[in-house]
Amino acid sequence: MSTKKFLLEENEIPTSWYNIQADMINKPLPILNPGTKEQLKAEDLYPIFAEALCQQELNQTDPWIEIPERVRDLYKIYRPTPLVRAYELEKALDTPAHIYFKNEGVSPAGSHKLNSAIAQAYYCKEQGVTNITTETGAGQWGSALSFAAKVFGLELAVYMVKVSYEQKPYRRMMMQTYGAQVIASPSMSTKAGRKILTENPNYPGSLGCAISEAIELAISTPNCKYTLGSVLNHVSLHQTIIGLEAEKQMEKAGEYPDIVIGCFGGGSNFSGISFPFLRHNLLHGTKTRMIAAEPSSCPKLTRGQFRYDFGDEAGYTPLLPMYTLGHNFAPANIHAGGLRYHGAGTIISQLKKDNLIEAVDIKQLDSFEAGVLFSRTEGIIPAPESCHAIAAAINEAKQAKIEGTQKTILFNLSGNGFIDLPSYDKYLSGDLQNYALTDADIQKNLDALDK
Amino acid sequence: MSTKKFLLEENEIPTSWYNIQADMINKPLPILNPGTKEQLKAEDLYPIFAEALCQQELNQTDPWIEIPERVRDLYKIYRPTPLVRAYELEKALDTPAHIYFKNEGVSPAGSHKLNSAIAQAYYCKEQGVTNITTETGAGQWGSALSFAAKVFGLELAVYMVKVSYEQKPYRRMMMQTYGAQVIASPSMSTKAGRKILTENPNYPGSLGCAISEAIELAISTPNCKYTLGSVLNHVSLHQTIIGLEAEKQMEKAGEYPDIVIGCFGGGSNFSGISFPFLRHNLLHGTKTRMIAAEPSSCPKLTRGQFRYDFGDEAGYTPLLPMYTLGHNFAPANIHAGGLRYHGAGTIISQLKKDNLIEAVDIKQLDSFEAGVLFSRTEGIIPAPESCHAIAAAINEAKQAKIEGTQKTILFNLSGNGFIDLPSYDKYLSGDLQNYALTDADIQKNLDALDK
Repeated sequence: MSTKKFLLEENEIPTSWYNIQADMINKPLPILNPGTKEQLKAEDLYPIFAEALCQQELNQTDPWIEIPERVRDLYKIYRPTPLVRAYELEKALDTPAHIYFKNEGVSPAGSHKLNSAIAQAYYCKEQGVTNITTETGAGQWGSALSFAAKVFGLELAVYMVKVSYEQKPYRRMMMQTYGAQVIASPSMSTKAGRKILTENPNYPGSLGCAISEAIELAISTPNCKYTLGSVLNHVSLHQTIIGLEAEKQMEKAGEYPDIVIGCFGGGSNFSGISFPFLRHNLLHGTKTRMIAAEPSSCPKLTRGQFRYDFGDEAGYTPLLPMYTLGHNFAPANIHAGGLRYHGAGTIISQLKKDNLIEAVDIKQLDSFEAGVLFSRTEGIIPAPESCHAIAAAINEAKQAKIEGTQKTILFNLSGNGFIDLPSYDKYLSGDLQNYALTDADIQKNLDALDK
Repeated sequence: MSTKKFLLEENEIPTSWYNIQADMINKPLPILNPGTKEQLKAEDLYPIFAEALCQQELNQTDPWIEIPERVRDLYKIYRPTPLVRAYELEKALDTPAHIYFKNEGVSPAGSHKLNSAIAQAYYCKEQGVTNITTETGAGQWGSALSFAAKVFGLELAVYMVKVSYEQKPYRRMMMQTYGAQVIASPSMSTKAGRKILTENPNYPGSLGCAISEAIELAISTPNCKYTLGSVLNHVSLHQTIIGLEAEKQMEKAGEYPDIVIGCFGGGSNFSGISFPFLRHNLLHGTKTRMIAAEPSSCPKLTRGQFRYDFGDEAGYTPLLPMYTLGHNFAPANIHAGGLRYHGAGTIISQLKKDNLIEAVDIKQLDSFEAGVLFSRTEGIIPAPESCHAIAAAINEAKQAKIEGTQKTILFNLSGNGFIDLPSYDKYLSGDLQNYALTDADIQKNLDALDK
């Protein structure tokens, strides 16, 4: 019998995260103050984020950042995660390709988000912070941070977009079970929320509004910091633990990936699985293809524009150099809520501009078709976000069959789908659809940015 | 940093299950034909179950039953499961006890049930069976069997108690995602169902009714067999993979358990974790305490009677020698649905009668208090069933603190609680309660059996 799961011992958990900025020839462009257009320094971000995280955010020199011992200790709750050879899926596809996946769904909160949540909570605690805030839409980040905050004894307030709060009660329940305070946004607890509710008592909420509430609470509360689960460089940094483990595990499997795939929302899990392998492309001449799989209804990398834009809908953040559909872009209501983001992080954007990574777009129905096939072969019901990576991997495996080549494909299974089962139910009942997006729609939205 | 998870390689997955019947001095009493009161032989069960399973059921001579290679191969999807030292929980309890748990919640269907589902589907397939049936209440068994059936290309019909079908949509969705046909019971697809529906169109269903529908379909359909997820000896046999792995892992941890704990419904997960350690008590003079943790609202081991009784509410099964509250016992509607069963399996019953195992009862509110503490320390939100084992482990750890002794406690975390979050929500909102059960209530129910 052949080995299916390639495991590591806990003492093989990497001791440093990989900071790809140090190895990039073209560094990410600076982030700017929207008023003065001046380049921001780490200190400018101190009022919002923990200092160590601000320094990590702008560190373009050190390729390795040591993982604090307490963080590694907590990683052991679920790390190292398994690397799995998908034999049953290969058989169903009748492909010569070898398909591997890294299973981040074994994390207790159900996704890779805990990798950065533990780190961010740690640095906040170290700095003497007592309270943290964040916003959450689909809820994977909020759930992970709720557990991390509890472990470090931090009080956490999560602003959850009101419509998600009502439609996704399981996510709210998970955060509350971990002990977080969950507030439907807009709320009466902030000026921003009160203003919106006064004007429109039935406003369903938005990520932009939830971000501004969370930031307002952070800067108006003593010993309180704001945290974010994707897009930013320090988040990608923490997620490299995924690829660094996978690198050791592929070695145990006696293979090296020709293709590395991750689903793509703001970039955290794709960065995590791909950067450690991209390092060898940058430094050692390997030619592994890195493929970001984004939803066709939110195609910033495949059809967006590289330019300065805000990271949030309301325009409260610094200006970021990114591939974007425009911060005012309203993505269709697909079930992969974690991929409904208008822009890509600054590192990913620069790498895409320099053709060092690729991107593909996946239609909603194709993503669920892939997810159901994966469930019925490998047994794991994937998060709708992860279904995009699976669909891209299946496409590559089918291509390998056509070409008759034995490709080695690695994708990241970013999360499990236990609490996303209603979306599978809708798919199997024929109640889901694809969403068309014309070039004119995209251009119109981008043109609005310049007005 | 100390090791938290003790892992095994796939080639360390045990190659045989352990059949404790062979090592018991007092064997379980025979099961009887309810009409003739004659002892049943394996052949008498062939019309209902796969032949290999009937033979395993009554095998009192072979201590080791080889695990077929294909079953071991599929076990590798999630096995070996981790053995985890619960350092964070120990710290919260400030106990000198060392607490370990075996994490069966990493199974893709979310619980230990897959251990027997894969085996049962395998033996059915080997025998040329094409269709299988089962019933499910809480849904963990139905979910696991749905995946196992799909992998072996078997058509599966699951009769799900109608009230659960309506109240637990996530479980139904999971089974359908795996490709099973799920029928709310009572249904119009069987004589038994039609009869009930004709008499009472609004009948909410019961496990007894679902069992009779599933058995009727199995015996009236060519190439169709019935399967069961707990209570029976062959199910306990398959579950011993849990304890056999744990035995190797405790050795890696350099410890041996003083106490082994599992929650108790029909007995499958408790048997699984405890029998391999009990073997050393029986054969080698160790004195590990084995504790079955049952809900105080369904206390067959702590307050039931040892006697012959039916395995199902409606009285369709053979007569089983068991600790029972009476097959007509209607347990309170606690959230640990998997523990709402009136009797204990015949092996467990004999072991309890011979004082070779212990039992404790846990109140519903205490079980959730334990589950929330575990979530906030170890990160994993446990299934409500598993919370009973955690509560019992916490009680033993507190006792160790009082006595100032360093006990080594091992419990089985039989499943995760992702799709049971509404029960946590109710607990945290103060909407759950304990259920009192007087001796008179129990006696009245048992007396009715003799009428």
